[in-house]
Amino acid sequence: MFTTIGLIAKHGDERVVSTLERLVDYLKSAGREVLFDAESARDVPSFELPVLPRAQLGERCDLVIVVAGDGTFLHAARSLVEHGVSLLGINLGRLGFLADIMPSEMTDRLDEVLEGEYEEDHRILLHAAIVREGETVFETAALNDIVAHKSNIARLVTFETYIDSRLVNTQRSDGLIVATPTGSTAYALSGGGPILHPNLDAIVLVPICPHTLSSRPLVVAAGARVEIRLQRDDAREAQLTCDGQTVLELAPGDRVVIAQLESQLRLIHPPGHDHYATLRAKLHWAREL
Amino acid sequence: MFTTIGLIAKHGDERVVSTLERLVDYLKSAGREVLFDAESARDVPSFELPVLPRAQLGERCDLVIVVAGDGTFLHAARSLVEHGVSLLGINLGRLGFLADIMPSEMTDRLDEVLEGEYEEDHRILLHAAIVREGETVFETAALNDIVAHKSNIARLVTFETYIDSRLVNTQRSDGLIVATPTGSTAYALSGGGPILHPNLDAIVLVPICPHTLSSRPLVVAAGARVEIRLQRDDAREAQLTCDGQTVLELAPGDRVVIAQLESQLRLIHPPGHDHYATLRAKLHWAREL
Amino acid sequence: MFTTIGLIAKHGDERVVSTLERLVDYLKSAGREVLFDAESARDVPSFELPVLPRAQLGERCDLVIVVAGDGTFLHAARSLVEHGVSLLGINLGRLGFLADIMPSEMTDRLDEVLEGEYEEDHRILLHAAIVREGETVFETAALNDIVAHKSNIARLVTFETYIDSRLVNTQRSDGLIVATPTGSTAYALSGGGPILHPNLDAIVLVPICPHTLSSRPLVVAAGARVEIRLQRDDAREAQLTCDGQTVLELAPGDRVVIAQLESQLRLIHPPGHDHYATLRAKLHWAREL
Amino acid sequence: MFTTIGLIAKHGDERVVSTLERLVDYLKSAGREVLFDAESARDVPSFELPVLPRAQLGERCDLVIVVAGDGTFLHAARSLVEHGVSLLGINLGRLGFLADIMPSEMTDRLDEVLEGEYEEDHRILLHAAIVREGETVFETAALNDIVAHKSNIARLVTFETYIDSRLVNTQRSDGLIVATPTGSTAYALSGGGPILHPNLDAIVLVPICPHTLSSRPLVVAAGARVEIRLQRDDAREAQLTCDGQTVLELAPGDRVVIAQLESQLRLIHPPGHDHYATLRAKLHWAREL
Repeated sequence: MFTTIGLIAKHGDERVVSTLERLVDYLKSAGREVLFDAESARDVPSFELPVLPRAQLGERCDLVIVVAGDGTFLHAARSLVEHGVSLLGINLGRLGFLADIMPSEMTDRLDEVLEGEYEEDHRILLHAAIVREGETVFETAALNDIVAHKSNIARLVTFETYIDSRLVNTQRSDGLIVATPTGSTAYALSGGGPILHPNLDAIVLVPICPHTLSSRPLVVAAGARVEIRLQRDDAREAQLTCDGQTVLELAPGDRVVIAQLESQLRLIHPPGHDHYATLRAKLHWAREL
Repeated sequence: MFTTIGLIAKHGDERVVSTLERLVDYLKSAGREVLFDAESARDVPSFELPVLPRAQLGERCDLVIVVAGDGTFLHAARSLVEHGVSLLGINLGRLGFLADIMPSEMTDRLDEVLEGEYEEDHRILLHAAIVREGETVFETAALNDIVAHKSNIARLVTFETYIDSRLVNTQRSDGLIVATPTGSTAYALSGGGPILHPNLDAIVLVPICPHTLSSRPLVVAAGARVEIRLQRDDAREAQLTCDGQTVLELAPGDRVVIAQLESQLRLIHPPGHDHYATLRAKLHWAREL
Repeated sequence: MFTTIGLIAKHGDERVVSTLERLVDYLKSAGREVLFDAESARDVPSFELPVLPRAQLGERCDLVIVVAGDGTFLHAARSLVEHGVSLLGINLGRLGFLADIMPSEMTDRLDEVLEGEYEEDHRILLHAAIVREGETVFETAALNDIVAHKSNIARLVTFETYIDSRLVNTQRSDGLIVATPTGSTAYALSGGGPILHPNLDAIVLVPICPHTLSSRPLVVAAGARVEIRLQRDDAREAQLTCDGQTVLELAPGDRVVIAQLESQLRLIHPPGHDHYATLRAKLHWAREL
Repeated sequence: MFTTIGLIAKHGDERVVSTLERLVDYLKSAGREVLFDAESARDVPSFELPVLPRAQLGERCDLVIVVAGDGTFLHAARSLVEHGVSLLGINLGRLGFLADIMPSEMTDRLDEVLEGEYEEDHRILLHAAIVREGETVFETAALNDIVAHKSNIARLVTFETYIDSRLVNTQRSDGLIVATPTGSTAYALSGGGPILHPNLDAIVLVPICPHTLSSRPLVVAAGARVEIRLQRDDAREAQLTCDGQTVLELAPGDRVVIAQLESQLRLIHPPGHDHYATLRAKLHWAREL
């Protein structure tokens, strides 16, 4: 039962504010305790709700509802995953893979969810560490993907990829995407990767514009430990992004170590949620030449 | 311990016969009981060994060694998988994904294997059933792939794909490949599919020349039940192949039901086997433009 | 000036018949001589118009209007191209690349065309000959594509491709598509080929599911002479299709010789015709993930 | 007849120096006037030859021989194309698409070339101008490609593409490659583009990781005027590269105007030059899975 519910939002445009207003009214009428995210409160009115830092929101709530686009949802997922709180997304505008409740049907769907009729999806996240001269200099999590990418557009980057300490290949390319099933419908798909079912216990490595024409996306078990080793004697520049949001410069010789995060995201869908219907709608599979 | 060892071979060319001869001598010197496959004995000398039907070979042996190309290995795997016997392949000519012992190193590698130093890979197989008017009219197994393909090259075929009873899409294309991780480096790869690690508990659906340009390969759990439904009112012709060997005509309205076979293949590799090294060698990943 | 106008149609469904009826009335009111295609007259009422064999239609008319789908248009183009007559298509249902006048705007667009306001596109066609034991056993033309394809779905076909008598490569694949710019948005696109602008003086060779992963589509001058040579000692079966309509069995050792047809199709568009707008509409380029 | 011959080289490693030494001796014995490039003379011994600035080299010479890798050859082509001088490349190490004479066969091949037995390839170049607030702020040429690419790896770039003043599409992607036939085997190929025959009068537009999954490479006439318009109200960053060497920051609202350069490169090959043989060798088409 979801009794204490947190709210995360972004960008105080009219639609977000009016959706939030309806949502707060609805949740209060439903007798729930409603808490507001401090980070969101900088942009968006908090409707006289108690405002808590993200970490406390994670500790106190059973459910957090995100009224925002994919970027905010990804950030919320990363910051809340370790607290084990469930997440639910209200999409604003276009149907999303993560936020699949439309504002127009919001109260009907929440009626069901609050009565315990919902589906819970467990989504894996990735943990990435940058190891430089033997020391971990940066760590982060990602719900979609970890991308190592050349930062100088005029040059390819050269790196070795290892899986569970075995060399996969040495690659010259624009970069490499390591994506979860959730991320397989994001940047990895543009890069030519396959679609992984959200519940699949796997990750996919997608090379970006590889110099070797026989390179192909590679799907391995989610438990695999992926290591990307930049050449030590190479002055070419590379960067790392996590969920397309954090950017870090990589140095020659850096190793990026990627493994499954121990905690998993608990993603709440209204009953009857159909991942394939979302795929058909978003990829226009029903449309013909 | 492998004490009773069966032999399967194909095509009595000089190289196969001389490799078999050395193999029989070696196994007898090693004190093993050696049995010969009846089907193979039609093409190849059986060296005065006891000749047994395939099913009895499966029951009697701990290990079956295949001296032949991929086609024979796939056939052997399908016919022996239910007996739980281990399989090992001697490749003839080019390095194979399944048969990874070269004749030149055969006795050294077998020394290790017979002493118990080997790696055992478990490979999933698929089971396919053709259901017509509610009745199963054909059943088969496949180690690589099940392919539904138009049989009239001048027309596309139209079918619906379901996974676990949910519609994935309606597709007009040349066909659909459903491949195991083992099959992901065979026909599915030519069709644009990703490479699945052999131990991954997943299968991949690869559309062949799909009319909808946003179609992409789809990776789902090995336990998924895939159903391909040919349009009932369509006179277009389609066929089904399993491991590229069996060909069956499909009729309008036919449903092809594909699920994981309960038994798994036990594939024996010499110690130090490295799947990524085989990929690098066979896909020429070391070679540059 | 278009004074004598021929009509080609297919499948006498209500929509075709009512469109034809309006078209005949319109053309007569506009004072044109209207002739009806004999082949079409088998399926469709001919509205008491003079009925002529296809060849005489080509000789007598300045313009032929096709009220039918792509298949009929392709067939009309092939049979009329040598007569130099202009072609215009009324599409029935979905927007087409060739037939780009909707029935609802038909009379307005024809007002413009008959007043001499139109755009004329010249489209190349291909000529294909099957050469067996030194003799040409079959010849045909194609507006979209010539496709050599395996006919046994369980086996790849092996063939050599030559351009202007130089070996391009030896290929194992499902087949090879040789497409004109017009055909580059048809089957070749499903096979992974690029889009060629309709006025480009080039053709494209697209391998279908090639075994060699570094195979890529190849664009060469329209004047190139392409030759596909099936292996002589290979019992594998192959077929040839032209515009997806004619099917011919190929024999081991057959050579398929493909060159640009001397005559070009004169395709009439209403003024303001925009090929990129058609591409955007048909390929859903405006739509986002 | 090539009577005055210029030399361009790069990186004074042992192999370059010894190849140059042999080349100078050979050309002098053959009675040719030999001139040395001033830019090259910074890195490489000039063997007491007259040293001239690049522009004078272009004016004075009939033929310029480049002993260096692809980067130097591309640079030489851009700087010499307007002078109409012929170019010939000695490759150092791996076979190149541009430099196709191996040092070991250098004197034999040059014997033929100096006797007038050679093939002359005409290669188109592109001209790109960056237009900002109505003024051209930068101009350059490219033999391979012009690439507009996001410079912030965490964000897609959004731009409109126009061909001959007609909108092709609005695209969100990592960038767009506009390549000549020469460049079609370079970066454009890694991005999924087709191979264009070197003599084809066409260019190809290849989207990099496009967000719209139905995006495809587009081949248009070399005479087409391509315009890439960055969104005016978008703070996202983009860069432009020409032949992978020059990097320029683009500003929101910038227009990149790309058209064929009037002058064409005269590329000299020894007799019997076979482009398809080079393709087979460099793309490993003879190799099988």
